[in-house]
Amino acid sequence: MTTPTLQSLTPVISPGFLAADTDPAKADWVMLGFPFDGTCSFRPGTRFGPAAVRAASQGVETYSPRQDRDLEDLNFADMGDLDLAIGDAAKALEQIETAAASVLAEGKKLVGIGGEHLVSYPLIKAAFEQYPDLKVVQFDAHADLRDSYLDTGLSHACVMRRVVELLGPEALLQVGIRSGTRDEFAWMKENKTLMASFEQFHSRLLPWLKTNTPIYLTIDVDIIDPSFLPGTGTPEPEGFTLTELLNWVSPLKTANIVGFDVVELSPHYDHSGMSAVTVAKLLRELLLMIG
Amino acid sequence: MTTPTLQSLTPVISPGFLAADTDPAKADWVMLGFPFDGTCSFRPGTRFGPAAVRAASQGVETYSPRQDRDLEDLNFADMGDLDLAIGDAAKALEQIETAAASVLAEGKKLVGIGGEHLVSYPLIKAAFEQYPDLKVVQFDAHADLRDSYLDTGLSHACVMRRVVELLGPEALLQVGIRSGTRDEFAWMKENKTLMASFEQFHSRLLPWLKTNTPIYLTIDVDIIDPSFLPGTGTPEPEGFTLTELLNWVSPLKTANIVGFDVVELSPHYDHSGMSAVTVAKLLRELLLMIG
Amino acid sequence: MTTPTLQSLTPVISPGFLAADTDPAKADWVMLGFPFDGTCSFRPGTRFGPAAVRAASQGVETYSPRQDRDLEDLNFADMGDLDLAIGDAAKALEQIETAAASVLAEGKKLVGIGGEHLVSYPLIKAAFEQYPDLKVVQFDAHADLRDSYLDTGLSHACVMRRVVELLGPEALLQVGIRSGTRDEFAWMKENKTLMASFEQFHSRLLPWLKTNTPIYLTIDVDIIDPSFLPGTGTPEPEGFTLTELLNWVSPLKTANIVGFDVVELSPHYDHSGMSAVTVAKLLRELLLMIG
Amino acid sequence: MTTPTLQSLTPVISPGFLAADTDPAKADWVMLGFPFDGTCSFRPGTRFGPAAVRAASQGVETYSPRQDRDLEDLNFADMGDLDLAIGDAAKALEQIETAAASVLAEGKKLVGIGGEHLVSYPLIKAAFEQYPDLKVVQFDAHADLRDSYLDTGLSHACVMRRVVELLGPEALLQVGIRSGTRDEFAWMKENKTLMASFEQFHSRLLPWLKTNTPIYLTIDVDIIDPSFLPGTGTPEPEGFTLTELLNWVSPLKTANIVGFDVVELSPHYDHSGMSAVTVAKLLRELLLMIG
Amino acid sequence: MTTPTLQSLTPVISPGFLAADTDPAKADWVMLGFPFDGTCSFRPGTRFGPAAVRAASQGVETYSPRQDRDLEDLNFADMGDLDLAIGDAAKALEQIETAAASVLAEGKKLVGIGGEHLVSYPLIKAAFEQYPDLKVVQFDAHADLRDSYLDTGLSHACVMRRVVELLGPEALLQVGIRSGTRDEFAWMKENKTLMASFEQFHSRLLPWLKTNTPIYLTIDVDIIDPSFLPGTGTPEPEGFTLTELLNWVSPLKTANIVGFDVVELSPHYDHSGMSAVTVAKLLRELLLMIG
Amino acid sequence: MTTPTLQSLTPVISPGFLAADTDPAKADWVMLGFPFDGTCSFRPGTRFGPAAVRAASQGVETYSPRQDRDLEDLNFADMGDLDLAIGDAAKALEQIETAAASVLAEGKKLVGIGGEHLVSYPLIKAAFEQYPDLKVVQFDAHADLRDSYLDTGLSHACVMRRVVELLGPEALLQVGIRSGTRDEFAWMKENKTLMASFEQFHSRLLPWLKTNTPIYLTIDVDIIDPSFLPGTGTPEPEGFTLTELLNWVSPLKTANIVGFDVVELSPHYDHSGMSAVTVAKLLRELLLMIG
Repeated sequence: MTTPTLQSLTPVISPGFLAADTDPAKADWVMLGFPFDGTCSFRPGTRFGPAAVRAASQGVETYSPRQDRDLEDLNFADMGDLDLAIGDAAKALEQIETAAASVLAEGKKLVGIGGEHLVSYPLIKAAFEQYPDLKVVQFDAHADLRDSYLDTGLSHACVMRRVVELLGPEALLQVGIRSGTRDEFAWMKENKTLMASFEQFHSRLLPWLKTNTPIYLTIDVDIIDPSFLPGTGTPEPEGFTLTELLNWVSPLKTANIVGFDVVELSPHYDHSGMSAVTVAKLLRELLLMIG
Repeated sequence: MTTPTLQSLTPVISPGFLAADTDPAKADWVMLGFPFDGTCSFRPGTRFGPAAVRAASQGVETYSPRQDRDLEDLNFADMGDLDLAIGDAAKALEQIETAAASVLAEGKKLVGIGGEHLVSYPLIKAAFEQYPDLKVVQFDAHADLRDSYLDTGLSHACVMRRVVELLGPEALLQVGIRSGTRDEFAWMKENKTLMASFEQFHSRLLPWLKTNTPIYLTIDVDIIDPSFLPGTGTPEPEGFTLTELLNWVSPLKTANIVGFDVVELSPHYDHSGMSAVTVAKLLRELLLMIG
Repeated sequence: MTTPTLQSLTPVISPGFLAADTDPAKADWVMLGFPFDGTCSFRPGTRFGPAAVRAASQGVETYSPRQDRDLEDLNFADMGDLDLAIGDAAKALEQIETAAASVLAEGKKLVGIGGEHLVSYPLIKAAFEQYPDLKVVQFDAHADLRDSYLDTGLSHACVMRRVVELLGPEALLQVGIRSGTRDEFAWMKENKTLMASFEQFHSRLLPWLKTNTPIYLTIDVDIIDPSFLPGTGTPEPEGFTLTELLNWVSPLKTANIVGFDVVELSPHYDHSGMSAVTVAKLLRELLLMIG
Repeated sequence: MTTPTLQSLTPVISPGFLAADTDPAKADWVMLGFPFDGTCSFRPGTRFGPAAVRAASQGVETYSPRQDRDLEDLNFADMGDLDLAIGDAAKALEQIETAAASVLAEGKKLVGIGGEHLVSYPLIKAAFEQYPDLKVVQFDAHADLRDSYLDTGLSHACVMRRVVELLGPEALLQVGIRSGTRDEFAWMKENKTLMASFEQFHSRLLPWLKTNTPIYLTIDVDIIDPSFLPGTGTPEPEGFTLTELLNWVSPLKTANIVGFDVVELSPHYDHSGMSAVTVAKLLRELLLMIG
Repeated sequence: MTTPTLQSLTPVISPGFLAADTDPAKADWVMLGFPFDGTCSFRPGTRFGPAAVRAASQGVETYSPRQDRDLEDLNFADMGDLDLAIGDAAKALEQIETAAASVLAEGKKLVGIGGEHLVSYPLIKAAFEQYPDLKVVQFDAHADLRDSYLDTGLSHACVMRRVVELLGPEALLQVGIRSGTRDEFAWMKENKTLMASFEQFHSRLLPWLKTNTPIYLTIDVDIIDPSFLPGTGTPEPEGFTLTELLNWVSPLKTANIVGFDVVELSPHYDHSGMSAVTVAKLLRELLLMIG
Repeated sequence: MTTPTLQSLTPVISPGFLAADTDPAKADWVMLGFPFDGTCSFRPGTRFGPAAVRAASQGVETYSPRQDRDLEDLNFADMGDLDLAIGDAAKALEQIETAAASVLAEGKKLVGIGGEHLVSYPLIKAAFEQYPDLKVVQFDAHADLRDSYLDTGLSHACVMRRVVELLGPEALLQVGIRSGTRDEFAWMKENKTLMASFEQFHSRLLPWLKTNTPIYLTIDVDIIDPSFLPGTGTPEPEGFTLTELLNWVSPLKTANIVGFDVVELSPHYDHSGMSAVTVAKLLRELLLMIG
């Protein structure tokens, strides 16, 4: 037995997301995790989401038979998780926005892993600073359009309301919403943000695709049915399959996506681990489709 | 800081079912929990069902986009759980029947949360006392038509057989049965109780709807596929989705339902909690549809 | 079978703590739950603590053979849980302080169930308002004396530092601390707050007992060894047994305790439920000893 | 590769208890499992106890360093579990008594695995039929001396009361009781059944040892502290270690034990499996000590 | 009470698969369990599969309404599990092959329960020895066609590659593969082993059915969607329902199946137990369809 | 808000062990994880040990009040986990030995995290190559002295037998062994390897301390009682507390330890996570004591 040098050993503490580079400098897409669940009202735990997705991604192939593409060919880097303030939502959001801005400022595109849905607000805000004509597409079980919730306006139940205050209701398309208050559904009806069919969604997207309008995509994983994804804070029955979700997303293939996030995985509520595997596969498919 | 009086504090020990009143006197519908699993042969734990449903209901909205109705508008009260004899099924059933009778005797309608399916027997018996022309609609994965089981006739595997002895086979419609003995399936064939299609179900229901015949609806949650509802004592693959179940139930919208129950949730077998959420949503939809 | 009236039924939605009255007006001791875990850095979930303790208390006897006393003889009420702001620690603390003040203002004594340890800060603050010569006894595995933590001074890791700023270090006795930073241990040494032995503890208590000085007792359940109490956010090996803890507490039998709390139970991390049972038994013993 | 005959294959469906024979005819000790939890008031699941003990025993050695004895040298057989009536406690008890009687009638000694503690009643009854001067030694956290419980006298909370009605209070020695009602503790004081110290226990045992009086030993595993044995229905803190329990049991080495049981293991409440391992080791030590 | 003889007691340690005989001599089909997970790369635990399936089968009916057949009418025996070498995959495979050969040598047909998918290799090898024109049908989420994996060619990721080296690619039909490397998919395309539609599958099967060609069927349970079967080592979203799987299998009703296996159940990853129930039902349906 | 450069962001994918450096070049101690459980006979899962220890270490303080020392002052690096062959124990052991040799060859000392106990064999072999007068101290519940086990000599049940063949029995001291076969205990008696008391242990150590003899320390965490450490493959009741273990280890403070390992943590069997926390604290104390 020849003893190799210590330098030649290549053990690994914990790998990043499947096939990701570690150096963001050369990457087109930069992945960041936001382990924040400070406004979660029902069941906390989405802070453990990013770590669970990375671990689960080790059991997923880099190759997608659906798209006949391989993550190995993609130019993206996983930078890891931000270290966020605890107990002070406003401060945490500021930290997230700053980080997102620094990615976008260098012309790179952003992939965010939540954390609760409120993290999308600073991400979209940072994108909006960079791209003033930004549009937002939301896949979600819940409207997240409350004005305030439990005495605060900075809650995951209010996130899209905050976004709309920034960009206006015409900049928002919502897909899959199946739970909300009477007021939220009335608002969506009035503002025509909720897509009733794939055809409607496609026709609303079309002008943005033609003009190469910058789009931010935010996916709350509870859009997927809890049978496939039990590990989420507010499971809502009668959701999408992963296949349905990917079909709905497919028109964005040709869109000018400047960033996207996948939020609300709460892995401790899924002992089997399949929720994290499903999110890892969703991320692979999104990266291969959009990236 | 002004200190409020002690009386003005409004902490809550544990809320009842979502949006329920606490005073049954003014309610049209009265909800009662029956934490009984004394004859469960495979895996006990349905006694924890009512508490789990109430807790899960806190994460569900009061508004149903499907029906555009809100629980806030409904006149119903949750009275809590009965304290039942343990180890003596006959006595527990008597206690349940007495409670149900006292609800029905005041002209109110009953919503029961199980507990194992055997609790439906005294509930139906009490309804039958009040409404001698009572009919029963059963949604279930299992026929529950055995004459006796493990040396006793008072078992959740026998509950519908006992019901039929009371009301006759023509008073029973069965939906979703996908598991049973050869004898049970032969009996259902002979007595034409098992609905082969939604159309057949609808046509059998129609005369009852026209004559405003009093109907009792009993739903064993294992009719739903275990992927959506793993938390049940005897999971049976190849079941309904919640959407399918609600579609099947929808003709009962115009029926004269005098009581209904939802039984066999065994929450400890579902670490994710989605089973209880699904039952809570089912109850919301039933209350808004029927109530 | 005679049918009783609806009014005569006595089902229960969810009982309060074992043998507690529901009317605080006549009680000497008032129990309140504070389901707050907003600054928890490691593993959230103490928000589920109060409900778990109440449920577990149903399996505990009201009688204590150790003390030959019975909770039935005690005059105390369980008012339930406060509904607290989420994502805004400062606001939640204010709500807790207000509630505590309203209990103390009516001359009653307070029993708090956490929730994370930060809830003790507003409770002690309210007691200090009422009793300016208040002393505090802390049982805990962690010093909780950091000046700030993860960019905020309102954290469960800072709670006793905040208390000391209010009352001065000489008003604090600390028992069982076995984890902290080098600085925290240096501070405790300098300020002589950490009790090295039961004898030292007793001799430091004695003057307070003699003068009937008002004392607030705060128990972080992680003082108990994780083998007995795995359900806590930051388990620290080499802790007390429950028997040891009760022996240490016993001199407080004759003290003028104006309030106490038991915090940091995180029940989801203990699948067996024994952590909640242990806290329920601890509360029973404390109530019978002090109440 | 030579293909052996099918008959020469020796696969095993599920082994019995560690090193047990399968043929009871030649055995001095016969082990039977009683998967019954029909009167359990708090948390059911002891019906899964016998299977869990057998499975866990596969990870335990046959040799005891404490006693320098090996189970391989013992003459005992494991017959498996009785198939018991569900929902009818009286009938199940009769089935258990019959089985026990048939073991004892052939001059063999009985090892029972529970199931809930109520199964000890028919076991002791059968032993009493065979040995009219039978004495009983109970190791338990709970007195189990209630006259009735939840409207029935056949409950695990009443089992020793029923036993005492049969044999008289002077035939009972109780060890480790640390939970009960005020009445139960008063009864034990009056009847001097509760052993205050090992010395007292030993001195009370001595006359029975000298006269070779037949003794039945019943061990409710909740005598052991829940930290070591979380998998039980009614965990009671401040219990024995396994070492302490074995030390207390050791004087019975020279006793005329005609049967013993180990009851109340509820394995689903212990995800780690150590409770079942502990019971398997306890059984090994008891068999090597007494058998 | 008459005491029966000890011989007349019929307790059971642990039953075999639902309704199975214990004597293989008279059986047409012989079931064997292979508790092997030695090459599992992601999450071990399939070694617990056979025991879990047997236990779960006790909650499943013997009668299939789909097929109007009953397991009671089938002539099959469950011999239990092989005791396999640990840490030496090559040796374990040899043990499995020998056992399979001894079943097939007596003209009986084999039902294997895994264990990981690698156990299929020696089973197919033994069948190939007996039937040189053997064909193989594989239902699986993963191609399992790697040449080597983690430095070894004896891995569950390579099992079908090894099979193909034995029988040639034209002897293999693959159904449901939705995950693999780019190379594996290229190989399947080149060798036309992956069935694109049920029609293609049927037309490829037809010649084999007509000529009564001996076929071995291997089902990796991860072909089923993880929502229905979370208890598997490498869950892959977007799978079959059980109904779809049974529909695909149905043409094999008239085939000359000489053996089949169901592998990769890892029950510890499914706390609800529904995965094992699903596999038990799948086995019942397969036995009634093919047996 | 000023946007920082991308380079100035410092997110982290997954930190190494608490306060460890990442560059081994400057370290005196080098930590490596060996995620291997290929010969585990009872319950696999120790492969998840190293990752669980690192994650748990984030909740542990760097400062030890017991020793008044801080990990920040120590010069050690965590290199992460080796990527090991699966299904081929011999190959994996070779990989481990090579890695260990490369650490020791540069004059550094080794800290190994298991994985199952068999990983200690190549670690000790590598140390023996470097230090021919090496001695070994083993803390363990099990003797691990079998000659072969389940048909192989490379098993975690044989690891110390293999070590003894290398170094001779006089080079081995064993502490805490409480489980084994009759033969193993006879062997230990004959070879005087099992320490009956701390005094004996100390007196046997003394000559080695005086001569600065190189010592390798291997700790199987099942020496600790399962109540404190349920997360292990073969839990054995009646073990050490962590305090007792540290007291036994304390004489090694002045020893010439050239490497040590901590093995057999199987974190999935401890839902509470306290086992991993206990191992993390044990490693901190060992590093501060020995490092």
